[in-house]
Amino acid sequence: MGIIGSTIKPFTATAFQEGKDFFDVSDSDVKGDWAVFFFYPADFTFVCPTELEDLAEQYETLKGMGVEVYGVSTDTHFSHKAWHDTSDKISKIKFPMLGDQLHTLSNNFGVLREEMGLADRATFVVDPDGVIQIMEITCEGVGRNAKELVRKIKAAQYVRNNPGQVCPAKWEEGSETLAPSLDLVGKI
Amino acid sequence: MGIIGSTIKPFTATAFQEGKDFFDVSDSDVKGDWAVFFFYPADFTFVCPTELEDLAEQYETLKGMGVEVYGVSTDTHFSHKAWHDTSDKISKIKFPMLGDQLHTLSNNFGVLREEMGLADRATFVVDPDGVIQIMEITCEGVGRNAKELVRKIKAAQYVRNNPGQVCPAKWEEGSETLAPSLDLVGKI
Amino acid sequence: MGIIGSTIKPFTATAFQEGKDFFDVSDSDVKGDWAVFFFYPADFTFVCPTELEDLAEQYETLKGMGVEVYGVSTDTHFSHKAWHDTSDKISKIKFPMLGDQLHTLSNNFGVLREEMGLADRATFVVDPDGVIQIMEITCEGVGRNAKELVRKIKAAQYVRNNPGQVCPAKWEEGSETLAPSLDLVGKI
Amino acid sequence: MGIIGSTIKPFTATAFQEGKDFFDVSDSDVKGDWAVFFFYPADFTFVCPTELEDLAEQYETLKGMGVEVYGVSTDTHFSHKAWHDTSDKISKIKFPMLGDQLHTLSNNFGVLREEMGLADRATFVVDPDGVIQIMEITCEGVGRNAKELVRKIKAAQYVRNNPGQVCPAKWEEGSETLAPSLDLVGKI
Amino acid sequence: MGIIGSTIKPFTATAFQEGKDFFDVSDSDVKGDWAVFFFYPADFTFVCPTELEDLAEQYETLKGMGVEVYGVSTDTHFSHKAWHDTSDKISKIKFPMLGDQLHTLSNNFGVLREEMGLADRATFVVDPDGVIQIMEITCEGVGRNAKELVRKIKAAQYVRNNPGQVCPAKWEEGSETLAPSLDLVGKI
Amino acid sequence: MGIIGSTIKPFTATAFQEGKDFFDVSDSDVKGDWAVFFFYPADFTFVCPTELEDLAEQYETLKGMGVEVYGVSTDTHFSHKAWHDTSDKISKIKFPMLGDQLHTLSNNFGVLREEMGLADRATFVVDPDGVIQIMEITCEGVGRNAKELVRKIKAAQYVRNNPGQVCPAKWEEGSETLAPSLDLVGKI
Amino acid sequence: MGIIGSTIKPFTATAFQEGKDFFDVSDSDVKGDWAVFFFYPADFTFVCPTELEDLAEQYETLKGMGVEVYGVSTDTHFSHKAWHDTSDKISKIKFPMLGDQLHTLSNNFGVLREEMGLADRATFVVDPDGVIQIMEITCEGVGRNAKELVRKIKAAQYVRNNPGQVCPAKWEEGSETLAPSLDLVGKI
Amino acid sequence: MGIIGSTIKPFTATAFQEGKDFFDVSDSDVKGDWAVFFFYPADFTFVCPTELEDLAEQYETLKGMGVEVYGVSTDTHFSHKAWHDTSDKISKIKFPMLGDQLHTLSNNFGVLREEMGLADRATFVVDPDGVIQIMEITCEGVGRNAKELVRKIKAAQYVRNNPGQVCPAKWEEGSETLAPSLDLVGKI
Amino acid sequence: MGIIGSTIKPFTATAFQEGKDFFDVSDSDVKGDWAVFFFYPADFTFVCPTELEDLAEQYETLKGMGVEVYGVSTDTHFSHKAWHDTSDKISKIKFPMLGDQLHTLSNNFGVLREEMGLADRATFVVDPDGVIQIMEITCEGVGRNAKELVRKIKAAQYVRNNPGQVCPAKWEEGSETLAPSLDLVGKI
Amino acid sequence: MGIIGSTIKPFTATAFQEGKDFFDVSDSDVKGDWAVFFFYPADFTFVCPTELEDLAEQYETLKGMGVEVYGVSTDTHFSHKAWHDTSDKISKIKFPMLGDQLHTLSNNFGVLREEMGLADRATFVVDPDGVIQIMEITCEGVGRNAKELVRKIKAAQYVRNNPGQVCPAKWEEGSETLAPSLDLVGKI
Repeated sequence: MGIIGSTIKPFTATAFQEGKDFFDVSDSDVKGDWAVFFFYPADFTFVCPTELEDLAEQYETLKGMGVEVYGVSTDTHFSHKAWHDTSDKISKIKFPMLGDQLHTLSNNFGVLREEMGLADRATFVVDPDGVIQIMEITCEGVGRNAKELVRKIKAAQYVRNNPGQVCPAKWEEGSETLAPSLDLVGKI
Repeated sequence: MGIIGSTIKPFTATAFQEGKDFFDVSDSDVKGDWAVFFFYPADFTFVCPTELEDLAEQYETLKGMGVEVYGVSTDTHFSHKAWHDTSDKISKIKFPMLGDQLHTLSNNFGVLREEMGLADRATFVVDPDGVIQIMEITCEGVGRNAKELVRKIKAAQYVRNNPGQVCPAKWEEGSETLAPSLDLVGKI
Repeated sequence: MGIIGSTIKPFTATAFQEGKDFFDVSDSDVKGDWAVFFFYPADFTFVCPTELEDLAEQYETLKGMGVEVYGVSTDTHFSHKAWHDTSDKISKIKFPMLGDQLHTLSNNFGVLREEMGLADRATFVVDPDGVIQIMEITCEGVGRNAKELVRKIKAAQYVRNNPGQVCPAKWEEGSETLAPSLDLVGKI
Repeated sequence: MGIIGSTIKPFTATAFQEGKDFFDVSDSDVKGDWAVFFFYPADFTFVCPTELEDLAEQYETLKGMGVEVYGVSTDTHFSHKAWHDTSDKISKIKFPMLGDQLHTLSNNFGVLREEMGLADRATFVVDPDGVIQIMEITCEGVGRNAKELVRKIKAAQYVRNNPGQVCPAKWEEGSETLAPSLDLVGKI
Repeated sequence: MGIIGSTIKPFTATAFQEGKDFFDVSDSDVKGDWAVFFFYPADFTFVCPTELEDLAEQYETLKGMGVEVYGVSTDTHFSHKAWHDTSDKISKIKFPMLGDQLHTLSNNFGVLREEMGLADRATFVVDPDGVIQIMEITCEGVGRNAKELVRKIKAAQYVRNNPGQVCPAKWEEGSETLAPSLDLVGKI
Repeated sequence: MGIIGSTIKPFTATAFQEGKDFFDVSDSDVKGDWAVFFFYPADFTFVCPTELEDLAEQYETLKGMGVEVYGVSTDTHFSHKAWHDTSDKISKIKFPMLGDQLHTLSNNFGVLREEMGLADRATFVVDPDGVIQIMEITCEGVGRNAKELVRKIKAAQYVRNNPGQVCPAKWEEGSETLAPSLDLVGKI
Repeated sequence: MGIIGSTIKPFTATAFQEGKDFFDVSDSDVKGDWAVFFFYPADFTFVCPTELEDLAEQYETLKGMGVEVYGVSTDTHFSHKAWHDTSDKISKIKFPMLGDQLHTLSNNFGVLREEMGLADRATFVVDPDGVIQIMEITCEGVGRNAKELVRKIKAAQYVRNNPGQVCPAKWEEGSETLAPSLDLVGKI
Repeated sequence: MGIIGSTIKPFTATAFQEGKDFFDVSDSDVKGDWAVFFFYPADFTFVCPTELEDLAEQYETLKGMGVEVYGVSTDTHFSHKAWHDTSDKISKIKFPMLGDQLHTLSNNFGVLREEMGLADRATFVVDPDGVIQIMEITCEGVGRNAKELVRKIKAAQYVRNNPGQVCPAKWEEGSETLAPSLDLVGKI
Repeated sequence: MGIIGSTIKPFTATAFQEGKDFFDVSDSDVKGDWAVFFFYPADFTFVCPTELEDLAEQYETLKGMGVEVYGVSTDTHFSHKAWHDTSDKISKIKFPMLGDQLHTLSNNFGVLREEMGLADRATFVVDPDGVIQIMEITCEGVGRNAKELVRKIKAAQYVRNNPGQVCPAKWEEGSETLAPSLDLVGKI
Repeated sequence: MGIIGSTIKPFTATAFQEGKDFFDVSDSDVKGDWAVFFFYPADFTFVCPTELEDLAEQYETLKGMGVEVYGVSTDTHFSHKAWHDTSDKISKIKFPMLGDQLHTLSNNFGVLREEMGLADRATFVVDPDGVIQIMEITCEGVGRNAKELVRKIKAAQYVRNNPGQVCPAKWEEGSETLAPSLDLVGKI
């Protein structure tokens, strides 16, 4: 029932990505690497391009960390391409953009605004086993922050790679971590 | 069905707050002001106190913004008091801590780890109408960041107070905002 | 159960129309005049613009006959505007284009291709009482013919305005009609 | 759920055809060639004979294209023969006329006017796999146009025989077609 | 559950009757007089016309007894008229012929051959209260006998008009009847 | 659902027949020969004995045609014997009389007057396959006619023995029959 | 659920009684006086007449005690009369005999042998309130004893008329009775 | 559904019998011999001991006939023993007394007074096949008669041992019996 | 769902109490005073009398504390009286003994051993509001201790009469109690 | 349905025990030895520590009798450790304390106060087969008595080890026991 710790559900969607022919992406393609699903309401609108541009600027860093990024809205892949062709900000995007006109992904992740047919402004971080580890949603009009996203993914990767260690509040790469034990109970 | 935009469900919980006798808090007490529900797994454990301390340090700022904060775990108010009495970090907390041994709040917000009887590491921002506007969950071992939380609440308050304006990605108080219009469609 | 003779179901959709701000259209706006609902699969694709252009060329005639035209796909009104801004053929369209990203209209008229989230290439003629009188669907890759549509609407209007008269096969405006009677039974 | 793209349902009906004894036709007889099911309300009535005559005049052309035609009403095969024996127009018909007094075909294709026990004025084009590709219905009193039907069947046959090609609006045999590709997205 | 003694169910059907325009007949039109419903399989077939002619010859007698006759098949009223126009035997019929292409009457009286869409060769005598008093069905190929029908209707009318009297086997008008009483028990 | 053409349902009943000990009759005993089930309301009553006597007089003829006759009421076989012992008319009966105090036969043939526990005045002719071919019911007080019954059974036997032949209205043994064919359609 | 102490269920049955015309008896006719319902399997059979004769001999006594007697079998009232007319033993019966061919009474009292359509050999004594006070059933072939029945009815009447008194085993009219009290507990 | 002719249902109960340790009795112990189940309301009460004493006096006779007797109430076997130890009348009982505090037997035989938790004053005679052949119930305050019970069991044993013979009303051992036959129908 | 804190369910039972006639006790009689329901398996058995005697010795003390005592088994009140009359230990009992042969009380309190029809060895203390405050059950063969019961009832009465006070472990009348407060949290 | 005699249900819980790392306890760990489950409402509260201390003082005795003890509340094992670290009374406890924040044990034993999320003050004694033999619950504010608990466990162990013996009321180790037999019925 909880979102964190659940495995992503099956889906297939057609993707637009700069420099490639349209191609299909499914849940099995996603597994094996870390992934970010970055939902936004609609092509050709307002806050979305600033968030997508902010994320585009972190894409190289994320790729270096082994993280793929998927932009998702309920528009088609045709529409994604047309937007990419005509918008300065969007043309900077190098990651795949998935057409979710079937609402499968938006429903799978529980972020479809059902009365509008549009997705929430929602981010999900999925580990190489296809398990959701981090999520965030902001209301209409409130932009996300790609750097904070990078910080949290680094912490999640650190915890996965260092069993027995946990990252305290506002942890940054290189800072100290904690090793829980019976003796620490009630002592922090 | 979506979380963002939904109204908080009815609840009553007993609170411990420094300097007061135990008292009850219900959903109707929450409405009228902005509120943060800050869930964590268990008293006397490890990441939780660093996050609670981090949040405690922003409490004055948040109160200044008209935001109340509620710490929540599935421990009792007796346990919260005992922890507050004996932990250096926790003793800094001035905000109320709710006893959720009935699991009502954890279930209401969908963050109960059912096989463990403990809550996720989850944050919810609720506006004065009792509507959830922002949420975030991180997996076990990944600490949150109270400053980023403050940034997002400021943006949400700005949007609520300035109809027709939206805040772009990583917006900070005082930065520029956007005013959506037909002419902007496809132009950002 | 039959489509012909049934009344259109309730809907609300946001429309883009050249020279206007976005506006909502509902089933009650449609009633009172003759209307054509002209479904097509997706903005920015291939057969659709030729059909929409063909229909755009008959729009003045149809308006003269008291018929409003609605283009419909499962794209948003944002996408419709962006397409209108950037395509030569589409920029000729003067009639409203409805955003059906909620799939309400496509489902109401039974023309949603459920496995794709796109509408069929389907035309419906609705009389001033909101009753469907004529329909046509062609498979993917087969373009419709706006002049034949005009012919059929003229016949339907003639029959509505001349009770007791019917229009024979391939009837054109001004040709002879028939007046059914007992004596004609078995005599044609 | 959609009609276009669905396979015809099982049926058996007794046919009258000039120069033959009565014989049975079933869905398996239909498959293997293109077919037109041409529904009309009732033998011995008014618009029907003009439409049937119009279609009879295209029958040789359609046979040349590999298309069989089935006239269908809820009358019996006895009644079809009696009408053929006594009507000038109907006596021109060379294609089989199916007796649908059981309402099986009218229900299968969704065109039974349930309160009357009569079929709509409906046309269905079925490909050699038994899949419906084109359909059309007009209200009572509005005659169809056999030539437009021939045009659409030709386009459907062209698309089936030339994968990767599509026929634009009002396409006629010999005219140009389109080949969809990524580069054409948003360019027509 | 029993047929005899049950009241006829609601129906409306369109009738053809020589010398009149088409008109509707319903169950309420039937009540008030004695009526015969004379079902047969199909217009333009074989045994049916001999039975209809046999009945047509008794029609004057039956009208004299206050009995209306309704011929019924699953053909339309259009077909009935066409048959009447073209058959010597059928042209003798003066009583109304009901079009039951909706199968309402055939189902109401339980005589629809469901796998064929045709009615049984069945006769029902209905009294002025709409109650079925006499019925008869013969298999395909066995013709009925209108004189025997007249004999039975006379007996039924006698019984209705002479309470306390019953008609013995093969009773003919004017023969002796019986008056049941306690003393007759076991004495006949 | 239709009675004509249906196979008789399973039953077992105890029979009284002059000159024999009581014996059981079941549906399997009936098959193999033609049979008449002759229902009547009650032993020791009024119309029944005249009908039973009328039928008794045709019993030799019917036996000569290979037809067995079963009298049936809801009385017991004890009662049938007692009536046969004490009534002049009934003592003429040579055919078996079935005791239907269980109401099985009356229910099987749909002729139980449920509010009275008595059978209708109903006749059923069953062919050697156990299939009902002819039926007749008259209301209380109207006697049947055994000679007309013989006429109809002869016709049914003729049709069964002469495939492709049918007997017209009021056909008597030796009269002409009809052979249906395409050419006869609409010609009688 | 228990039989003793339950009220008789509604019924209406037609009765034969010597010297009267047939008449109806219902549950409301029964109430107000004591009554015996004396069921037996069938008219014209073997043990039944000896039991009915035995009861007939006690009828005057029972009438003197204010008790009506009803003979009941699943035969009709016609059959009861015919039996009374022709049997020496049965002709002695002065009490009413009810026709239960509908099986209502046999079912109401739970004594229908369902596989035979005949009643058990069962006796029920009903008090003036319609409540069953005594019952007895014997298997096929075992005759009852009317004198023992009279003894039990006398005891039941005594108990009803003398509250606080009970009749010990094999009590006869005039013998001692008992008055239960606390002191008698465990003392008899 | 009928009681007479039904087989006793499974049960196990603990029995007290003079001179033995407590022991269990089940339905399978009962079969093989004739048995009487003699229900009574309660130990230590009033009519019951007179009936039990009356039956105790017939126990030797019944044993001689091969009949076992079981006294049954909803008291425990402890209570039965205590009563036997302290009551003059009850101490005469030699047959087993079953403890039915579970209400199994009272429910099995349908004689539980549900609002009181006590059994009716009911007697059942069961043959060696476990089939109930005779039953009797009297209301509160009316004692049974053990001699009449012996008479009926003798008749039932006679009928079982002499197939084709039946015992008339008030038959006593040694009296005449009847042999039913066709010739006797209606002759007694 | 919990037993402690629930209100006793409705019941009516007949009681035996030394020196009184039998009388009924219901749940409404119980309310208003403290009560003990003391269940035991069966009259005339083994551990039960020692426990009942032990309780009988505390009865005066309990009455002095305002507590009524009810002995309960699934025996009848007749059996209770008989036991009281004949047993030395039981004859000491002055409190009422309820007959629960209907199993109502045993079921209400959840202590019926369903496979035996006997109650557990269970004690329930009910306060004047009819609410269960204390309960205890021991297995077969383990006797209870009436003095410990008195101790616990005294504590429960103290708590009821002194709001804000609680009785620590093994508290005896007159010992110290505790007054819970925020300051005591975690301090005991 | 009854608690006594039922087997404990499956569970797994994390335990804190002095001198050990946290470890899991399940139902299968419990079986094989006698066990006490000692429920109490909450860590850091008032009556609980006095009861836990009282039990801690009997722990050595109980261990000597082969009895393990489990303290249980709906707090976590983290909270149990923190309480043990900081309370004088609780630090005396040597037995394991189970964390039941999932409410599994409280529900399994039927002692969850559902409206509070806390357990009753309840004790259960479980034998080596996992079967509950003794139970006790007191209301809020009434402390239990560990010595009486020891007495009852000794009796239960005696009964288990000495088949055929039972312990009377307030039995102490070494006192006399009883051996039930037929002769003792009604004699104690």
